[in-house]
This record gives sequence, structure tokens and C-alpha cells, in this order.
Amino acid sequence: MSKLRVAVIGAGGRIGSEAVRAVQAADDLELVATLGRGDRLETLTEAGAQVAVELTHPDAVLGNLEFCVRNGIHGVVGTTGWSEERLARLGEWLDAAPSTGVLIAPNFSIGAVLTMRFAQQAARFFESVEVIELHHPNKADAPSGTATRTAQLIAAARQQAGSAPQPDATSTALDGARGADVDGVPVHSVRLRGLLAHQEVLLGGAGETLTIRHDSLHHSSFMPGILLGVRRVVTTPGLTFGLEHFLDLD
Amino acid sequence: MSKLRVAVIGAGGRIGSEAVRAVQAADDLELVATLGRGDRLETLTEAGAQVAVELTHPDAVLGNLEFCVRNGIHGVVGTTGWSEERLARLGEWLDAAPSTGVLIAPNFSIGAVLTMRFAQQAARFFESVEVIELHHPNKADAPSGTATRTAQLIAAARQQAGSAPQPDATSTALDGARGADVDGVPVHSVRLRGLLAHQEVLLGGAGETLTIRHDSLHHSSFMPGILLGVRRVVTTPGLTFGLEHFLDLD
Amino acid sequence: MSKLRVAVIGAGGRIGSEAVRAVQAADDLELVATLGRGDRLETLTEAGAQVAVELTHPDAVLGNLEFCVRNGIHGVVGTTGWSEERLARLGEWLDAAPSTGVLIAPNFSIGAVLTMRFAQQAARFFESVEVIELHHPNKADAPSGTATRTAQLIAAARQQAGSAPQPDATSTALDGARGADVDGVPVHSVRLRGLLAHQEVLLGGAGETLTIRHDSLHHSSFMPGILLGVRRVVTTPGLTFGLEHFLDLD
Amino acid sequence: MSKLRVAVIGAGGRIGSEAVRAVQAADDLELVATLGRGDRLETLTEAGAQVAVELTHPDAVLGNLEFCVRNGIHGVVGTTGWSEERLARLGEWLDAAPSTGVLIAPNFSIGAVLTMRFAQQAARFFESVEVIELHHPNKADAPSGTATRTAQLIAAARQQAGSAPQPDATSTALDGARGADVDGVPVHSVRLRGLLAHQEVLLGGAGETLTIRHDSLHHSSFMPGILLGVRRVVTTPGLTFGLEHFLDLD
Repeated sequence: MSKLRVAVIGAGGRIGSEAVRAVQAADDLELVATLGRGDRLETLTEAGAQVAVELTHPDAVLGNLEFCVRNGIHGVVGTTGWSEERLARLGEWLDAAPSTGVLIAPNFSIGAVLTMRFAQQAARFFESVEVIELHHPNKADAPSGTATRTAQLIAAARQQAGSAPQPDATSTALDGARGADVDGVPVHSVRLRGLLAHQEVLLGGAGETLTIRHDSLHHSSFMPGILLGVRRVVTTPGLTFGLEHFLDLD
Repeated sequence: MSKLRVAVIGAGGRIGSEAVRAVQAADDLELVATLGRGDRLETLTEAGAQVAVELTHPDAVLGNLEFCVRNGIHGVVGTTGWSEERLARLGEWLDAAPSTGVLIAPNFSIGAVLTMRFAQQAARFFESVEVIELHHPNKADAPSGTATRTAQLIAAARQQAGSAPQPDATSTALDGARGADVDGVPVHSVRLRGLLAHQEVLLGGAGETLTIRHDSLHHSSFMPGILLGVRRVVTTPGLTFGLEHFLDLD
Repeated sequence: MSKLRVAVIGAGGRIGSEAVRAVQAADDLELVATLGRGDRLETLTEAGAQVAVELTHPDAVLGNLEFCVRNGIHGVVGTTGWSEERLARLGEWLDAAPSTGVLIAPNFSIGAVLTMRFAQQAARFFESVEVIELHHPNKADAPSGTATRTAQLIAAARQQAGSAPQPDATSTALDGARGADVDGVPVHSVRLRGLLAHQEVLLGGAGETLTIRHDSLHHSSFMPGILLGVRRVVTTPGLTFGLEHFLDLD
Repeated sequence: MSKLRVAVIGAGGRIGSEAVRAVQAADDLELVATLGRGDRLETLTEAGAQVAVELTHPDAVLGNLEFCVRNGIHGVVGTTGWSEERLARLGEWLDAAPSTGVLIAPNFSIGAVLTMRFAQQAARFFESVEVIELHHPNKADAPSGTATRTAQLIAAARQQAGSAPQPDATSTALDGARGADVDGVPVHSVRLRGLLAHQEVLLGGAGETLTIRHDSLHHSSFMPGILLGVRRVVTTPGLTFGLEHFLDLD
């Protein structure tokens, strides 16, 4: 079987250089081009790339994807900053290239994606749900984007199922003790030296609790998701938003 | 809206008496009959029961279900001991009563069912999977039946996905250190005073781990699953084996 | 060896009745009297009690202890509400009875006492310390008294050691995300159906974390501490405040 | 205040190079010499080193320490392989240099040392104790040396306290399910991709459990212990074996 021909755009970055190594190490993939800042996009077509892994910046990604889609090169995109308008423009290019596919994933960690998915599925079966996220103390925002997104997905699933509000008899509290309120789901942010990125979803019902915990210890955790995206995008025309759609969970 | 008319067979047992209270406490259900050892099954029809919760013994359950199905009463069954032959006999009765449904569930804890389901779904995305189960020290078997079943489901999912064997460079080990081998999945059993019933599935890939933990603190944890079964079985004719089919996970 | 003669005052309460059973079950102790509301204190001397376990109310405890100490009966006290003034009065009675001992313990759970002690000892070796306490959703106060006390002990240990303030680069936060501030130690309160009383102290330094977790699943957890108090108080004249002093940790 | 003059022997190794950086970053320490393989020991005296951090090999460490002790240079030693005979030889040199101190520590991670210490202190208060250690799947031995040592310390503390054997009603077990037996303490070894080095001590009594968990995420976790050793060894003549003696825990 011939190998899938893969290029990496943004190959000089922290995640990009890791992606280069991951593609090289995969038996069924061939790394045919690596592009850094200022490199010509034509390199992609000259090298015969079938899939481009795009890991650059919001101000570069649209131009890169326009070139790829117009040339029938599938895209696996980790770059963020997608507005409705930007997605619409990408959609137009894809409409004109009906056999080409693009995967945009806000998070390529399969563990993080599964955590969100499982939390969403389990949320309506339990009276109580809270989220604890734990990170190194150099992080600027609290809660983390992933935790906020997880809480929103949980809240939406509960609303759709008609779940009652969470029970909470707290009548005397120190300010902040019960965490941040994200659509009715309490979220607690721990900042501890020695930690990297961790998240715990706690669900509780009569007589039992279910805990889903994701520990991210290295950005190499994005690689299995990126490779899975590369292998699947070639048979998935059009736009796919979110790695969960490639995990065959339903 | 009229309430669903529910009976409990085996109402004197530990789980049965809990089920009686749970049905009574539910706004949409009406408890119309409770049967203990030696009580007449005709009480069910006389009381106009629509659903019977069956929590007795393997030697009583078949007779109870034959009566229910022949009289169009749906069944929610926690009694164990189901062989192929027994299931076949139940199937014949159900074939003759095409609008009647029976749910048999080896485990009514939604948390335990979700843990098994999520473990099964996640298993093929990670290089390594191990199971730790923790129980009180009066337990006779190790591993627990739930842990063994969970490991088997994980192993089957990995085999179906063509997963590689788990990495393990252990060359010097004390006997037992690496746990029991259940179809290639290591299972570790902890027995600790103060614990009840707990299970942890650990999944690990490059740079990340995913942990799914279920803590069962009281047998009241079976009640939400029993009530969910009662509500769903009335619109699900035929035999359903396993609560997971009523959780709308796919 | 003759058995130690023990009485329980407040024997009708939830903890008191458990204490009665625990004393009866101990090979080296003999239960000689149980007093409920309105029972005569003279029963204690008539029964020849050597130690009285006092589990009543703040408005009864002083009278009970005055009687005990004046009659040379040692006390093991779980009743709360101790002010400086109340302790001073007890101290006077003890001064007049130099061979009699009284142990007052705000918490008889050895696990809880060890958690606080270990947290206090470890606090100065780590840059970061946070506390997460998790309880059932019927709890009125947040954080729990134990968590607040734990955080105060941690803060005091760090101040005494001259520890730097905890690192925290948070610049954008949802209200409450970073928990309650107890003397500079963040405390997070989770309220979840299915839980009882749990506490986790997280300590983090360069490249490592240490977690001390206490799970309290039943008030029987107070019994080992009460029995240990009974056995030790007879050879410890004067007032001892806190079970930790009987654990021989230093 | 003048800075303490520190040398690192074995500065080219993985831990050694980290130690070089840690000494340089400490305000109260001055790095005055770094020695690699083949470098002359006289560099230490020429540079006026007061303390030498020794991180080499069992076949080099004795020679290095003989030179240090004879020249009044204190030692902080991470090199392993200490037999009774080797310790005796070191002891003779130290006897001849009564103001010089040497700290030998099998483990410089303060978290690991505290875990062992707390486990040892808590062991006699609980009916049940088990150890779970979790490492990356490239590890050759199971259980880890740290887990074996921890279990031995726990067993010794229980024997000294006259603790009863652990309760365990297991009568039917898969081979290995209940872990390895280290002096009566079950030890379970998990090997999971994505993990580094982790250890959990679980203690359980009536109605409660206490868990002490150490997560080691990077070998930088040895640095605080090495620096603490450097600062303390200069005022602690003679041989100190084990970092715990410098933690002022009692």
C-alpha cells in the first residue's frame, strides 16, 4: 500500500516540530514537505502533498487553507481564531472542491476530547456535576478554556434533558468557595507548581459518583489526534469541526 | 397525566425495600402492589400493575416473568442467573406478547454502566489500559465481577480495533505485582477497611492519561437505573439485556 | 489484666450510641454506665467509672465535667463550644485534681487529624498548597470547618518557615474560580450528591506534587480515636486539647 | 552574608547538570567548581569549595568522598550502592574529621521522602494498608524500589506497634489480582504510557480512608532536596543517611 503524502505548515513551532517527528515515525505516512514562516506554498503541490497539517497563526491560516483547498490538498488544522465569517469563507472554497476535506480541531488531545464527550453524555444522569481544572501557576486565565467549554457542554446537555438545577444547600460561604458559575455548573481552578494541565469532571447521584479525569503531561499528547485526523480527513470531504467527529463514538 | 402503575416483586429484600421507597417517592409512578415470598402473583393483575420490578431469586424469576408477560405486564429485572436456555424460554413468551417489554440488567448502577461503556469506547485510542478495583476486605472474590467484565469489554474493543499488545518492559517482578491478566488487560484488586465498591479504569497514551472512576457508596445507587428502566420498558417491546440500551448513548 | 471501666454520657445520640457499641466490643474496656438526658451523674461514681466519654451539648458539658473531675473520673470529650473562659474553668477543676486527665478533641477521626498534621508538616517544603473539600449538597457552610482549620494551620506553618507567597499568574478570572482565600491558601468547596465528607490537600513544587486525601464514609470513623483517647487519658493528667497529642507523632 | 561555596561532581550527567543550574539560581549559594569524568579532584580545594554535591557512580564515589572529607569539604551524595562495608570506610574518614558532614540520600525528592515518612507514621492507626505505584511502561522492575521500601517501612511500623494482620476475606482470586506481598503489605504495579513516576499509599479503617499520593513529573523534583541538603550539611557533622533527618519532622 502506498503511503499517504503529508506536509506540515508551521513546522518550526513547538507543536509543528513535534508533528514533523510524529509523521516521520508513522509507517503509513510519508513526510513530503515542511514549511516555515516565509516558505512558498507551491512547495506543497511540487511535493505532491495529499494532506497538509496546518499549525501556524490566525493571520496565516486562511491563506494557507485557500491554497490547499484550491489544489485539492486536504487540511488538518490546529490553528485557532475561527469566527463565523472565517468559517463561511472556508466553506465557499470547500463547496468548489467537493472531494476535499478539512478538519479544524480546537483540541487534538484525544483524552481531552473524550473527557468532554463523556461528561456531556453522563451529565443528565446525575443530580450534581462540578468541574475541577488544575494547572501550573504561570497560567493567566481561570478557568481554563477547556474547562469552560466542558462546563458549557454539560450545562447544554442538562438543559436539553430537562435536568433540575443542582442541589446546593450552602447558606454561609466564604467568597469564592463554591467556585465560578459557568451556566450553572461550578468550576474550580487550582494553580499548583509541579502540575501541567489536568481536568476532572465529578458527577454525583444517589449513592454513587462518577469521575472522569484527564491528565495532560506533554504536548506530545496532540500527536495521536493529529495523525488520526490526517488518516481520516482524506475520506471525509467538506468541513469537519472537532476531532470528536472522527472518533466513531456514535 | 396518569401515573404509571408499578409493582415490586421481592419487596422484602434489601434492594427490594429500597425500590419500594423509590417508586413511592417518584411523582410520575404509583406503587400499586408489593409482593414478598409466598404472595400470590394474581395480586399484580388485580392491582392493575403495568410494570413489575422483579428483585427475587434465580429459582423464582422465571415463574414470575411468565405470569407477567402472559398478562401484558412489563418487567424490570435485577435477578441474576440467566443462561442461554432461560433467555430462550423468556423469548418465547415475549414473542407471544408483542407489545410487552422486559429489561434484564446485571447492573442497575448508571455510574457502573457508564464506566464500562466509556472504557470500551476509549480503549482503542490509548496504548495502555489497566483496571484497579477497590472493595471492603470482606469480599470473597478478586477481581470483582464488574472489573472482570470491564476488562473483557476493553480487551474485545481493542481486538476489534486491531490494537497492538500493551507495552510493558517489566523483566524483574515480584509475583503478583503486575496484577491479574484478564484477556491481556491487567486488573488490580485492593481490599481496604473503610471502602465499599470502587473501580478505576486508567488509559494512557503519549503525553496523557484518561481515568474513569466509579465510586459506589450505597445500594441506593441502583434506584435511578431501576426507575429509568420502569419508565422506558413500557415503550420498548421485547427483551432488552443491559441498562446501557436505555441510556441513549448512541 | 483488669479492664478499664468506661461510661458514656450522651449515650442516646448518634455518635453516643455508636460509642456504646465500640466500648462493648473492645476487649480491654468494660462499659459500666450509659447516661442519657436527665440521668443522674451519681450513676458514674456508683458504677465505679474510671473514664467518661462525654458526647452531649455545649450547655451540659461543663456540669458533667465538673462532676467527673471532682470525682477523679477522667474525661474524653467530643462536645464542642469551648471558649477561653470555659477552658479556664475546666483548668481550675483539673488543678485541684492533679492525677485526673481530660482530652477534648474537636475531631476524633484519626484520618482527619493525620491529614491536618501531615499538611502542616509538609507545607513549608512546597511552593504551592491548595485545599479541596468535597461534601454532600445538604451542607450549609462552605468551606467546611475542617478545611478552614486545615488551611489556617498550613498558612501558619508557612509563615513560621518564612515561605514566599504562593505563585499565581492569574490575570483574567471568572469570579470564584480560584476558590476562597483562607490566610493566603485557596480553598475550593465541591457539593455533590453521593458524597459524604472528603478533603484533599494538594502540595506542589518543582517537578512533583504531594496529595493527602481523607475520605470519611461513616461516623464510625470517630470510634478508633475515641477508644484511643480512653486508653491514653488515664495516664495523661491535666488538659489535652486535640487528639494529635495522643498519636505519638513526634 | 557570604555565600556558601558549592561544587558539583558529576556535573555532566542528567541530574548533575540540573544541580549545576539549581546552585547557580540560588541566591545564597555560589557555584565554584564543576567536575566531570576525569577532572582533577584538586579543583575542589583550589576553588575553595565548602560543599560538594556528589552525583557520579558507585565506583567513583568512595574516592571522591575520601578526598572531600580529608580536606574538610562537606558532601551531599546522591550516588547509590552503599554497603555496610562502604559506609564503615566512610565512617572512619569522618571520625578523623569531626567537623565535616556527609549526607547520603537514596532519594532527594522531598515529596517521596515525606510520603514514606507519613505512611510509616500513619500505618499503625489503620487496619488496612496497600501501596499502588504507577510508572511508564519502559520500567524494568516491578514493584519500584521506592514502593518496596515504602511497604517495608509500613510493615516494620505495624510490627513494632503490634498491629493485627490485615483483614482479607479473599477466597477465590485470579493469580496476581491481590498484588505482590511485601512483608504482608500488598503492592500493585501499574505500567501505563503517559505516566512518569507515581505512588499512592492507601490506608483504611472503620468508616474512613487516608490516601497519600506522590506524583513525580520531572527529575527537577530532586533539586529542592539537594539544595536543602547543601544548606544543612555544613552544620551537621558526621554521617547522615536519608534526607528525612534534615526535614525537622520531629
